[in-house]
Amino acid sequence: MESLTPHDLVVMLAGFAVMLGLARAAGELFNRLGQPAIVGEILAGILLGPTVLGTFAPGLFGWLFPGAGAVPIAYDAIITLAVVLLLLIAGLEIDLSVLWRQGRAALLISVLGTAVPFAVGFGAAYAAPRFWGIEPGADILTFALFFGTALSITALPVIAKIMMDLNLFKTDVGMLVMGAAMFSDLVGWIVFSIVLGMMNANAPPEADVGGHGGLGLGATIGLTLGIVVFALTLGRYLVHRALPWIQSRLSWPGGVLSFTLVLTFAGAALTEAIGIHAIFGAFLVGVAVGDSAHVRTQTRMVLHQFVTYIFAPIFFVSIGLEADFLESFDVLLVLGVLAIAFVGKLAGCYLGAWLGRLPTRDAWAIAFGMNARGAMEIILGLLALQYGVIQEEMFVALVVLALLTSIVSGPMMRMFIAQPKRWLLEELLDVGSFFPRLQATTRAEAIRELAAPAAAAAGLDESAVAEAVLNRERVMSTGLGQEVAVPHARLDGLKKPVLVLGHAPEGIDFDSPDGEPARLIFLLLTPRDDISAQLQIMGQIARLFQSPAARAVVYESDSVDVVRALIKTEAGESPHGEALPGG
Amino acid sequence: MESLTPHDLVVMLAGFAVMLGLARAAGELFNRLGQPAIVGEILAGILLGPTVLGTFAPGLFGWLFPGAGAVPIAYDAIITLAVVLLLLIAGLEIDLSVLWRQGRAALLISVLGTAVPFAVGFGAAYAAPRFWGIEPGADILTFALFFGTALSITALPVIAKIMMDLNLFKTDVGMLVMGAAMFSDLVGWIVFSIVLGMMNANAPPEADVGGHGGLGLGATIGLTLGIVVFALTLGRYLVHRALPWIQSRLSWPGGVLSFTLVLTFAGAALTEAIGIHAIFGAFLVGVAVGDSAHVRTQTRMVLHQFVTYIFAPIFFVSIGLEADFLESFDVLLVLGVLAIAFVGKLAGCYLGAWLGRLPTRDAWAIAFGMNARGAMEIILGLLALQYGVIQEEMFVALVVLALLTSIVSGPMMRMFIAQPKRWLLEELLDVGSFFPRLQATTRAEAIRELAAPAAAAAGLDESAVAEAVLNRERVMSTGLGQEVAVPHARLDGLKKPVLVLGHAPEGIDFDSPDGEPARLIFLLLTPRDDISAQLQIMGQIARLFQSPAARAVVYESDSVDVVRALIKTEAGESPHGEALPGG
Repeated sequence: MESLTPHDLVVMLAGFAVMLGLARAAGELFNRLGQPAIVGEILAGILLGPTVLGTFAPGLFGWLFPGAGAVPIAYDAIITLAVVLLLLIAGLEIDLSVLWRQGRAALLISVLGTAVPFAVGFGAAYAAPRFWGIEPGADILTFALFFGTALSITALPVIAKIMMDLNLFKTDVGMLVMGAAMFSDLVGWIVFSIVLGMMNANAPPEADVGGHGGLGLGATIGLTLGIVVFALTLGRYLVHRALPWIQSRLSWPGGVLSFTLVLTFAGAALTEAIGIHAIFGAFLVGVAVGDSAHVRTQTRMVLHQFVTYIFAPIFFVSIGLEADFLESFDVLLVLGVLAIAFVGKLAGCYLGAWLGRLPTRDAWAIAFGMNARGAMEIILGLLALQYGVIQEEMFVALVVLALLTSIVSGPMMRMFIAQPKRWLLEELLDVGSFFPRLQATTRAEAIRELAAPAAAAAGLDESAVAEAVLNRERVMSTGLGQEVAVPHARLDGLKKPVLVLGHAPEGIDFDSPDGEPARLIFLLLTPRDDISAQLQIMGQIARLFQSPAARAVVYESDSVDVVRALIKTEAGESPHGEALPGG
Repeated sequence: MESLTPHDLVVMLAGFAVMLGLARAAGELFNRLGQPAIVGEILAGILLGPTVLGTFAPGLFGWLFPGAGAVPIAYDAIITLAVVLLLLIAGLEIDLSVLWRQGRAALLISVLGTAVPFAVGFGAAYAAPRFWGIEPGADILTFALFFGTALSITALPVIAKIMMDLNLFKTDVGMLVMGAAMFSDLVGWIVFSIVLGMMNANAPPEADVGGHGGLGLGATIGLTLGIVVFALTLGRYLVHRALPWIQSRLSWPGGVLSFTLVLTFAGAALTEAIGIHAIFGAFLVGVAVGDSAHVRTQTRMVLHQFVTYIFAPIFFVSIGLEADFLESFDVLLVLGVLAIAFVGKLAGCYLGAWLGRLPTRDAWAIAFGMNARGAMEIILGLLALQYGVIQEEMFVALVVLALLTSIVSGPMMRMFIAQPKRWLLEELLDVGSFFPRLQATTRAEAIRELAAPAAAAAGLDESAVAEAVLNRERVMSTGLGQEVAVPHARLDGLKKPVLVLGHAPEGIDFDSPDGEPARLIFLLLTPRDDISAQLQIMGQIARLFQSPAARAVVYESDSVDVVRALIKTEAGESPHGEALPGG
């Protein structure tokens, strides 16, 4: 058997270390800037690809990403697995019952939010294929169908992330957007699989993609529809019958995990064999498996974490390797794609929401939410590029569209819907707000000692802050019991909450209900008109630090990072637990 | 860039579906037979490999596993990632503080249990290299060092699994064996990395393994030791400083997950580059990261599940593809390897335990525990085969050794240490022991209705069973409250507990403390002399079914599989949570 030489192995492993490391670092950075991680991951790829590294350090670029030999095949194998698993996850998140439960407005938004951009894209591409970057010689109908699909698809994971960031995930608007996005994705992928079959039938022989001989276009489309219907009816039924047996008889959650992956690989091989792409089979398996209550939270979580944090970054970074994003950047084309994509999607969704009798502000928020495109747009573009339907310029324009819509959707939704912000303890505590050894021995001393840094952080006068907190303390003691006290005050002139934490090793009497002295003293300042902030934050403190183990971590620590890590990991469910519909 | 053709993709995806599906099915089957999953996974590989499929269906075998082209390279890339991740997991499980805490006996067992088999293997191989299957032309010293290492190494994951199965994991004997096995693994891999450097320096040029030009043997050994010392001191310190920062500032658990994998790929590339194998770097990263309290249970769990249930089976099945296990089966060599391996390991460990003043039965149990070899033995043998140090016959003998010791260690330990068996609800309930609609309306009727199938399962007389349970019920009612009752009896002539569950939709009065009628009625028969079984099982029922949600699942279900799935997934921690030391 042919295999990788030791030198190939060194390059491949170093390549994955660099790709994953840079992608995740950039993803985390963009997360901290309030942006979806995918934006950072793709930019990391552009840095590593021909655009930057290939131009400025061609030697290193050529070493890491050789054009020939075994290494590119090894990369291709793993990136293919990554995108197959990414589509499995995308499919798992689709639960059409969410859509049915939202009623008439959701259906209108789904249908119009998919059909209008499709019609706009199809019409524009059909009327002026050269302008929109058709690959010379490619079939115009195929190209127009592709472009329509590309404009109508959404990006469920990006949308889910935005909903969570805006604290909208479980609201009516949030569920509406999620349901409609699921519909768009499902229809989009089915149409696109047919487009793939057409691409395949029309591909020039030298492209060496698809074309497994015998199958004509009609057979491919027939088989595709057959597989879709099977997966969503009998296949889904059989999976739902098999899962309880697997859960009860095999190891857990390993049984369900392996079963899902075996089905995924088999489905992917099948759809690849009939001439539509492997990812389509993976997506359908995800849809068939996903809405089963028997795929418990833990199984989803393991898959989700591994794919989100390992495979997806490697795939997104590889996007940047596909093209030179400066050389192939066609300003006119990019602006044209952005304009038509925004207009088509916003108009379709707004129309649906308006017909569904939603208030204007909600309708706009929904339209901007549905306008987010991320991974799905890019995968579509990548396949069209590889199948020789579009030129590199169009691919670049689609990547820009995906990035820009992912960036603007959140802020635009926030403009139209105001939600009380959710304050997280670990975001409030930072360097300079944790004092592992308080000097104070009395309640007033402790409050004064903590008021100084709090006032500095708030930009207020130190003694005024201390007085406000002491006044509040005189009304009623803030000792919560279990060695915790939360002296606090609501103040004018404060923009956001300020929290300072002190540890008093000897304990300070805070007149707690359990009679014990307080050792953890949180001084909390909140804006006067934001009542919910104070309740939220005090609730979190009370919940978290009732555990002696959690308090012990703070007592033994002199770094705010350890405290933040504790809060984050103990504060209950991980964000992704919530992100998964039905999870 | 070169890439996989659609046909390559179909083969690769189908290949993974078949490999993973067959490996996991066989692994689960062997688990049910009380054997480690690895035994089934390797046998699945032998079925799929040249031994069986290649002989009986050479066409299909050639299609799935072509000898040339891009597909074998794609397999190689993913199998290499699999073994790199497997060694990461193995490293993560090593926590030497477990060893120090066990004191003198543990140290004696560790040192002698490693040194004696090493000396025996080294001496035998050095004295008669031809008998032990040296590859003609290979360096005798290298070969002898390899054989010594192969006999001294253990298999932590297999041992951990056996300890759990025997309910010994948290006992003194269990911790002793785990600690000593960690020591053996750590020393074994360090010695083996040096042997790899020697293999590399001595490899014939046509083998095309290792040999990155410049580095001589001295430099390789020096660098290896330098990397080991760095990883276990400064590297470990830096990782432990970085982790709280990562946990508190980056997404969780994704931050730690990606960080660990980036380090793993980088470490693997480094050790591969200096001429020892990539897996060694992955192992060291695992050791450096693993004993940090900041790698929380969830991060470990995600990695563990994905590797155990996806990557590891693919790797183990690939073992079977490496050789023809019938053609290369040399009876004399296999028996010789088994004899020398058993004698060396058992003698060394028994001697250590005896010097450590442990009771004889414990000493034997520990020796047989340490004798288990699984994945590690096989990986060692595979590398030696690829580096041209041993012949295929010796590789086959080592695989047989790994399988046989994995199979016999559990039963042998059980012979020497009797532990009360742990009964699990989901193992007791089976087809024929769940009655979704009881006819009974009174307590006595319900007991009689359930006594019939229970007596049949126990092989006892029906009316005698019913009488015993009714007599017990007269002494004191067995209604637990919250709609649950557990009528029960201890009986002579019963070998193991029998449990039958009936659902009474209308409810039956069982004189429960909360005054509510019972809807779930468990009839439990246990052997008269096994008091712990009754307490264990009743405790599990009471704990699990106090939740109204859990009861609702049973009320709505008419399949025992749904009930078993509920019990398994709700019964608290997954087995692997316990399997991880420090987890």
